[in-house]
Amino acid sequence: MSQPLYFEDLSVGMRFVSPPHALSEAETTTFARQFDPQPFHLDRESAQHTIFRGLAASGWHTAAISMRLMIESGFSIAGGILGAGGELSWPIPTRPDDVLRVECEILEMRASRSKPDRGMVKCRNETRNQRGEVVQVFVCTLVVPRRAGAA
Amino acid sequence: MSQPLYFEDLSVGMRFVSPPHALSEAETTTFARQFDPQPFHLDRESAQHTIFRGLAASGWHTAAISMRLMIESGFSIAGGILGAGGELSWPIPTRPDDVLRVECEILEMRASRSKPDRGMVKCRNETRNQRGEVVQVFVCTLVVPRRAGAA
Repeated sequence: MSQPLYFEDLSVGMRFVSPPHALSEAETTTFARQFDPQPFHLDRESAQHTIFRGLAASGWHTAAISMRLMIESGFSIAGGILGAGGELSWPIPTRPDDVLRVECEILEMRASRSKPDRGMVKCRNETRNQRGEVVQVFVCTLVVPRRAGAA
Repeated sequence: MSQPLYFEDLSVGMRFVSPPHALSEAETTTFARQFDPQPFHLDRESAQHTIFRGLAASGWHTAAISMRLMIESGFSIAGGILGAGGELSWPIPTRPDDVLRVECEILEMRASRSKPDRGMVKCRNETRNQRGEVVQVFVCTLVVPRRAGAA
């Protein structure tokens, strides 16, 4: 799966599953101190008295880890994984001891009308914990190059 | 602006502007090595030959910095800034020397029907660079507590 993938190599329904990533409390609090310094992300004791009733990873940490897992899933698009954005949701919190995996599924594909060298690929990326619960959904549209000479 | 804000303290059209954050190349490549190890985020030389034509920060780095700036903007919601997700877009790349700011604007508000202790607040968060160009838009809905006793 390390061959770079072009638009022509992909099809609706294709799935890519990442290796696991085991989080640690140190990792989640380090990220939170830098980017999301709020009590429910920083400290086990104070987090007990928040809406999360315990320490939770920043959603942006889940998102960043999910990006790396997506890269490691074999969804190795020629030129790189390049998104212009998408719809992001965190149905339940990620916890400091979670083991995360990402599953990417191709939902839609369309060749660009104005730029014949590329296509748009809509994907649903689900990040799941060790119990199979979905902690993040990111539905995004990627720009994927077509093979040289493709019309 | 450091008083915790409740649902009753907010209104549609309110705006919060963050202090600036000056990025550095070391910061962007450190983030990318950990979370988004792709050539256009890692190395100035290789990035020249990619679609970005130069080094760009990971969109997830822009998102993570934007979270911290949102916290620093004075939009200090009682109990913390708590989002269940939203719509994310990166209209143009963030560059390693950019100076970022976040502007949050409240778009819609509604009290929860099922849970009288909270309301939902829809916000548009724009992250802009030093030229005022929008590098990220995040439209999200936050859960905001109502003051005790509010009906």
